[in-house]
Amino acid sequence: MGILKRGGAGWSAPDEFVAGNGLLDRRALLGRGMILAGAAGVGVGASGAAAEPLQEAEWSTHQGQTVGVTGVRSRFEKDTVRILSNPKGEPRTQHARTPHHLLNGTITPSHLHFTILHNGIPDIDPAQHKLVIHGMVKQPMVFTMDKLMRYPMVTRQTFVECGGNSSPMFSNEPVQADLQRLHGLVSNSEWTGVLLSTLLDEVGVDPKAVWMLPEGADTAEITRSVPLKKAWDDAILVLYQNGERLMAEQGFPVRLLLPGWEGNMNIKYVHRIKITDQPAMTYYEARNYSPVLPDYKAYKFYFVNEVKSFITNPSFGSSLKEPGYYEISGIAYSGSGTIKRVMVSADGGKSWAEAAVQGPAQDKAFTRFHIPWRWDGSPAILTSRAVDDGGNIQPLRADFVKARGETLKPVTNTNGFYSQHYNSLTSWGVNAKGEIAHVYV
Amino acid sequence: MGILKRGGAGWSAPDEFVAGNGLLDRRALLGRGMILAGAAGVGVGASGAAAEPLQEAEWSTHQGQTVGVTGVRSRFEKDTVRILSNPKGEPRTQHARTPHHLLNGTITPSHLHFTILHNGIPDIDPAQHKLVIHGMVKQPMVFTMDKLMRYPMVTRQTFVECGGNSSPMFSNEPVQADLQRLHGLVSNSEWTGVLLSTLLDEVGVDPKAVWMLPEGADTAEITRSVPLKKAWDDAILVLYQNGERLMAEQGFPVRLLLPGWEGNMNIKYVHRIKITDQPAMTYYEARNYSPVLPDYKAYKFYFVNEVKSFITNPSFGSSLKEPGYYEISGIAYSGSGTIKRVMVSADGGKSWAEAAVQGPAQDKAFTRFHIPWRWDGSPAILTSRAVDDGGNIQPLRADFVKARGETLKPVTNTNGFYSQHYNSLTSWGVNAKGEIAHVYV
Repeated sequence: MGILKRGGAGWSAPDEFVAGNGLLDRRALLGRGMILAGAAGVGVGASGAAAEPLQEAEWSTHQGQTVGVTGVRSRFEKDTVRILSNPKGEPRTQHARTPHHLLNGTITPSHLHFTILHNGIPDIDPAQHKLVIHGMVKQPMVFTMDKLMRYPMVTRQTFVECGGNSSPMFSNEPVQADLQRLHGLVSNSEWTGVLLSTLLDEVGVDPKAVWMLPEGADTAEITRSVPLKKAWDDAILVLYQNGERLMAEQGFPVRLLLPGWEGNMNIKYVHRIKITDQPAMTYYEARNYSPVLPDYKAYKFYFVNEVKSFITNPSFGSSLKEPGYYEISGIAYSGSGTIKRVMVSADGGKSWAEAAVQGPAQDKAFTRFHIPWRWDGSPAILTSRAVDDGGNIQPLRADFVKARGETLKPVTNTNGFYSQHYNSLTSWGVNAKGEIAHVYV
Repeated sequence: MGILKRGGAGWSAPDEFVAGNGLLDRRALLGRGMILAGAAGVGVGASGAAAEPLQEAEWSTHQGQTVGVTGVRSRFEKDTVRILSNPKGEPRTQHARTPHHLLNGTITPSHLHFTILHNGIPDIDPAQHKLVIHGMVKQPMVFTMDKLMRYPMVTRQTFVECGGNSSPMFSNEPVQADLQRLHGLVSNSEWTGVLLSTLLDEVGVDPKAVWMLPEGADTAEITRSVPLKKAWDDAILVLYQNGERLMAEQGFPVRLLLPGWEGNMNIKYVHRIKITDQPAMTYYEARNYSPVLPDYKAYKFYFVNEVKSFITNPSFGSSLKEPGYYEISGIAYSGSGTIKRVMVSADGGKSWAEAAVQGPAQDKAFTRFHIPWRWDGSPAILTSRAVDDGGNIQPLRADFVKARGETLKPVTNTNGFYSQHYNSLTSWGVNAKGEIAHVYV
C-alpha cells in the first residue's frame, strides 16, 4: 500500500545523503520514505475508528486540577531541574546548571537558567536598592529603581556563559556525563532594561575615562573591571528576564548585562559603577580569571565567550532504540556575533554537512540548528562545528589543546579552573546498540 | 553646571516634538535635557564617595538564601500573578489572565501565560498519551510521544489570543480596569514542535479533504473544525514552550498551535485529528463561537486574531508622580503577519507619531514599541494604533462599533460573549495629577 504522499514506500525510498554515515540534506522534507517504523497505526481502521488510542483515558473522565495564580509544570517533568554543586547552601559557592539535554528551542526558562553565587541569594528590597554612577563623571548620580524604570528600555535575546563552563572538557579522557554536567553553565534569555550608555549620557563621562568598575550589592560584592567601550556599545542594566522581573538569583532588582562577555562580569545586584581610567585589578580578575597559558603568560582581560556549539538531540543520557530516521539538533552561539553556519558530521569529522539554522538567528544569542539523519545501525560519531558572521569558527580539539595546553594541568589548578573558555567540539559516539558515549575526535 | 554630555542643561534644552502633547522623535537619544528630576545624586560627592547608597545594606552583610533545583522569584514580586475567574476550581470554566501591566519585553513567562480550561487541568501521563490521525487518509497512524519526538522540529514565537479577549471593551462606558482585566487573555511564547504538515505527509491525505477536526484528551474534549490549508501552512504540534516541555495547563504533552488563529482552536492535549471534507459544526463552533452581527447574520468560521496593540507603560494602575520625561511602551501583534508600524498619540488621536518597533519583529508574534514622551503636567490621552505588513490597521473605535454593533447588546448575550475579536484602540486618560483612567476616543 502506498502510504506516502510524495512517492516512496518505507525503507525502499532513495535518500539523498550529503555526508557520511547517513546525514541528509537539511532541506529534506519527509514523505520520502522517512516514515518511522512503528508509528503506523495498529488497530486503526481506514474508517477512522481507532479502537485503542481513542479509548477514554483516565484523565478524560473527570475534572482536573484547579488553575492557580501561577502555572505549574506537569508532575511528569519533575526531573527537568538543575543539578546543584552545594544543595545545602554551605558557606561557599553554589552552582546550578541548565539541563540542555531536556530542553528545546532557544529560550532557557528563567527558573532553569544557570546561576553561580558565592554567598547565596540576597533578599533585596527594590524600594531600598539604589544604583550610583560615580568616579570620572561630571555629576555623580543615584538612581532608584523607580527612576530607572522611567528610562527608555531595549529588549534583546542573549546568552550568558560562565568563563569556566565546560571545564570537564579539559580532562584527558572524555568525562561520561550529560550536557548539563558538561555545558550547563550557559543559558539564553530575553532581557529588557536600560542601555548603560543612556545613563552615562546623564552623568557625563570624562573623556579620559576608559574603564569602569561595577559592583554587586550581595555579600560577595563582586567587582570586575570592564572597558568603557562595552558600556557605549551594548551593555544593559537589566530589569526584566523573559518578560517578568529578574529572578532573585539572577540579580533582582537590577543586573549588568554585557552581551557575549563571560558570566562573572555581568554583575548581579549592581549598586554602583565607578568610572575610571585604569583597571582595578580586583581579587577575582587578578587571581581567578587569569589562567596561565603554556608559555607561562597569564591569559588576562579576555572577555568574549567564543563561538561554540553542541548537539542536544541525540546526546549522552538518551539512546537510539532502533535504526531509522532521527533529527540531529543542537545549540550554537557566539559572543562575537550571529551564527552564520553550523556544520555537522556523523563520522567523527571525516565528512561534514551544513545544518539548517533556525531563524531569526540573533546577535550573541542561542541559535538552534537541525539536520535529518538516517541511522543504519552501525557505529557513528556525531559532532557539530559553528561559524559566526565574523568568520570565527570553533577550533578542532587538537588545535585547541595545543593552544591552551590546559589538559596538561590538573583541573584542580586554581588558576586554570575558573575561566577556561572551552569552545572546541563536543562529540557523541553511537555504538551498534544505539548507546551514546562522550568521545573526543 | 553642565551635566549633560550632548549639550543642553535640564529643562532648558529644546525638545523635538513630533506630535501633540509632548511626543518626541522615536530616535531621540537622551543627553539632551531629558534628565529625570530627582535622579541626580544628593549626598554623592564628585570624588565618588557616596555616603548614602554605598552604606552597606542589610543584604550585603550575611549569606543569602540557598539556590534550589528550580529558580524562584523575589518575594517582592508576589503580586505579579494571574487573576482567576474561578479560584476554587468549581466545575465550570476557569480563566487565568496575564498581568501585562507588570511585564515587559515580548515573551510571556509560561507560568504567567493565560489559560482557559473548561474542566480543570488533566494529569496526563506522556508515556500513555497517543495522537491518532485518521479519516480521509491513505493510512491512519498512531503517534506515541516518543515517536513524535523523533520528527523534525521547528521553533518560533507566536502569540495565542482568546477570541473573547478584551470583552470589557464592548461596554458602553469604559471599564476602569488594568490591562490584565481588559486584555489578559493573550500571551506570547517561543514554541517548539513538529509541523503538522510533516505528519500529514506521513499519513497521506486524500486530495478531496479540506477540513480537519482536532480533539483534546481532557474531559472537555474540545473539538474545532479547522481548514486543512492551515495545517499545510504553519500548524505545529507543540511539545515545548519557552524552552521546556509544555506546562500541564498549556496542553502537556502535546498541543495544536495555529499561529495567529483564535485560542480555542489551538487544541490542548490533542489526541486525535480527523481529516474530513466538511466542517463538523460542533457544539462550540455552532453556538459559542458564532456571534451575531447587527444584520443578524452569524459571524461564523472567522479565525484570525486581527491586528491589535495596547500601551502597557504607563497604563491603568500606575500613575505619573511628576511632570517630565517618560517612555511610552506597549505590545502590538497581528494574526495576519508582522507588525510594520505603530502610531502613538498623546492627544487622543488628534496627532500621531511613529513609535520605534523593537526588532526583530516576528510573524504573528508580540512586538514591543517605544516612543519617548515629555509630560508637561496637563491632561493627555495616550493611545496606539498598529499596522501589519499586509496593510491591516486597527480600526478606530467609532468604525469598529458601527461594524460590530456589539455595544448595542448586553455583554451577557452568550452568542456575543465568547468570541468578539475586539481589535480597536485602547486609550489611557492622564489627568493633571498624573492619575490614569481608561477612556474611549
